Amino acid sequence: MERSETPSALLVDLYELTMAAGYFEHRVNCRATFELFVRHLPPSRAYLVAAGIEAALDYLENLHFTDDDIRFLRSQPVFQSVSSSFFDYLKAFRFGGDVMAVPEGSLIFAEEPILQVTAPILEAQIVETYLLSVINFETLIASKAARVVRAAAGRAVLEFGTRRAHGPEAGVRAARAAYVGGCAATSNVEAGRRYNIPLAGTAAHSWTQIFPSERESFEALTQTFPENAILLIDTYDSLMGARTAVSLGRKIAGVRLDSGNLLEKSRQVRKILDQGGLQSTIIVASGDLNEEKIESLVREGAPIDAFGVGTELATSKDFPALGVVYKLVETEQNGRREYQTKLSEEKVYSPGKKQIFRFPRLGPYAYDVLARATENFPEGTPLLQPAMREGRRLTAPAPTAELRTRTLRELDRLPVAYHALHNAPRYPVRKSPALERLLEQVREEHLQPSAPSASP
Amino acid sequence: MERSETPSALLVDLYELTMAAGYFEHRVNCRATFELFVRHLPPSRAYLVAAGIEAALDYLENLHFTDDDIRFLRSQPVFQSVSSSFFDYLKAFRFGGDVMAVPEGSLIFAEEPILQVTAPILEAQIVETYLLSVINFETLIASKAARVVRAAAGRAVLEFGTRRAHGPEAGVRAARAAYVGGCAATSNVEAGRRYNIPLAGTAAHSWTQIFPSERESFEALTQTFPENAILLIDTYDSLMGARTAVSLGRKIAGVRLDSGNLLEKSRQVRKILDQGGLQSTIIVASGDLNEEKIESLVREGAPIDAFGVGTELATSKDFPALGVVYKLVETEQNGRREYQTKLSEEKVYSPGKKQIFRFPRLGPYAYDVLARATENFPEGTPLLQPAMREGRRLTAPAPTAELRTRTLRELDRLPVAYHALHNAPRYPVRKSPALERLLEQVREEHLQPSAPSASP
Repeated sequence: MERSETPSALLVDLYELTMAAGYFEHRVNCRATFELFVRHLPPSRAYLVAAGIEAALDYLENLHFTDDDIRFLRSQPVFQSVSSSFFDYLKAFRFGGDVMAVPEGSLIFAEEPILQVTAPILEAQIVETYLLSVINFETLIASKAARVVRAAAGRAVLEFGTRRAHGPEAGVRAARAAYVGGCAATSNVEAGRRYNIPLAGTAAHSWTQIFPSERESFEALTQTFPENAILLIDTYDSLMGARTAVSLGRKIAGVRLDSGNLLEKSRQVRKILDQGGLQSTIIVASGDLNEEKIESLVREGAPIDAFGVGTELATSKDFPALGVVYKLVETEQNGRREYQTKLSEEKVYSPGKKQIFRFPRLGPYAYDVLARATENFPEGTPLLQPAMREGRRLTAPAPTAELRTRTLRELDRLPVAYHALHNAPRYPVRKSPALERLLEQVREEHLQPSAPSASP
Repeated sequence: MERSETPSALLVDLYELTMAAGYFEHRVNCRATFELFVRHLPPSRAYLVAAGIEAALDYLENLHFTDDDIRFLRSQPVFQSVSSSFFDYLKAFRFGGDVMAVPEGSLIFAEEPILQVTAPILEAQIVETYLLSVINFETLIASKAARVVRAAAGRAVLEFGTRRAHGPEAGVRAARAAYVGGCAATSNVEAGRRYNIPLAGTAAHSWTQIFPSERESFEALTQTFPENAILLIDTYDSLMGARTAVSLGRKIAGVRLDSGNLLEKSRQVRKILDQGGLQSTIIVASGDLNEEKIESLVREGAPIDAFGVGTELATSKDFPALGVVYKLVETEQNGRREYQTKLSEEKVYSPGKKQIFRFPRLGPYAYDVLARATENFPEGTPLLQPAMREGRRLTAPAPTAELRTRTLRELDRLPVAYHALHNAPRYPVRKSPALERLLEQVREEHLQPSAPSASP
């Protein structure tokens, strides 16, 4: 069973709570829909792998303010002018909204909503920071992982990045997202427990250094872990290390190379192992690897069976943050619906609730249509699915392994051109005529004399 | 009182635990010293601000394995060959080692140990992953923050990055590190509570959109927060927004600009506010800001009082991971000391316990000497201080505000040349002759026929 922990309700930007207080004091209680999406794909990302959705739903279902949370808020100078009934409201607070989401592991492109939250404005506002943070990060890492996994072309990718992740908890989430993105295993033990991810590990240089000789260190490791020992052979000299491994005269699960020219070293080591009768001993490579280096090693035919990837994967080092935003698209009060956008040129987005249709239903993906939620395109697959109604999840969390399987299946349906690590073509996302018309309509209404910007 | 939470003992790379099991099974129980340091400074970082040390000490003091942790480990295939007395050892495990550390907020350069851990090898090994992760991340962010704060030249820097941080918990740690690095406040409420950091926030565009007019939204915010409301004035048009703020005819704490040409906009808005009698209303600027943009705005004399910085700060976007390593430098068994290093050219480091001496004791910093721990340079300040003995902290955690004060004081002592955002000179760190000799000695011993790499 995968475990979850209830995060603090104070994991939120102050302004979500001050705005909530303001809405409360002014009895603003319309129902609002926010959509969470990425305005632009980062350079050299042709697609994103949606992730963090389980964490988002988990948060929404469990969010509540403890007495200690409320005591802290009341002690803050900014809240001194807020009436005490707001804090009673927080005490009773539960998220009771509806959520649509793309299945975790789906491929997503710019402007396509990953999550759509419809709730009373206070509830929809308070959850903004947390939703952005988990979906931004897990989607970032799952997307990076997918690139690395595709580059490895069938060889296993092991996530080794916790030590360079943005703190140990980010390491756990990175491990999960990397697994959703297609990695085979992680070294993070807590992630293994929490999300049921296979664990992998080898040994460090310190292990070799502690023993009087490399040979003794190898013997000790294979004695304790007869089936699983992966010997780190580059502490002194990789080829010498490979010969020492052979000289033990026993089955060895694997060896690891962590430095030097991995193409050349892996070939030489493979030869030594094979000649020594260790044909089934695998070679694991590590050391500042990323998708470009892996693609090149694979292309050159390096006899490497698994890649350990750390820093580059757990921080998405080439592009460490997505520009995920959470935008108000629609409000409704007493049956009156208003479509919302921002009209300033650099920040305009399509108003109204949306649906993503992906074409065709079977076979390789060709294009998406971003449409109004009320539209229907029977030839396409609608991606946004009901995930939560009145604050309750509609389905049990999927096992993480299933999400990984979905990602790998989706990646296979994306034509190979989009898998180019650089300069991939742009996957076509068209806006439906009805969605385009709605933006024009909102723009025109806004230019009327009664529009907000023209108020005195 | 600043709160801490006990992290899971499984926040660790698998290999730390398999190596621990191997040491245990082979009765390897020497005392080992590991040093945690950065091999090279990232490009465009002339110094680092050491942070994450409180979190590291907190972890070391509280680390223990629960029954559930041990049950999980025993269930893993890799541990099937390990004797049950190892798990009894884990059940009783407590970190009982000694720790030297630089004070949090100290400036640190390449190869200088931030932390030095001396403990029985199993204890020193198990804690590696967590120590690397917290110190890597908090040092990364505190160092980035210091650059941003220096660029702001006395104007307040507000940390707004949680939504783009690597998960909400990374947001909390980023907020702490940013504050240690000199920021004035954070928007992350949990960070405010946990580390006693001033909170700051404004309002979002959704606030403005929800009301029938911008004017009504401004009125509502200033009514609820008469002393603190910072109005976001760029939802429709910044200048119109500024005029609307003036037209309210009341005191306004501040306005925020989040888009457009901030230099030009801030000048125009300042003029409108001043002419409207709002001379004491501050201008907060935000929107993908970083140290370069802030330096340029300050140089041009933009009338901006505070900068809200998000993504760039909370992810250290230009360089999102330090290459922090944790290396075995010394072992001791039955009074026999061995100095440890790795001799492969790309990964060599100085063996033996070290001390950092910074010169001179008073006034601007000139250079450091990296020396053996047994050396003494009375003219310099030794940076590594005893932080923990036999697993107990020697002093109570310092309030976070004190660490921030230390950082700002240290930054002032660093000559201005090193504060250039790019192409700063390299701060001189010399190695003492005794430290250089020790590396040569280890190298020579290693070339003897009895050395490990020459074993059959």
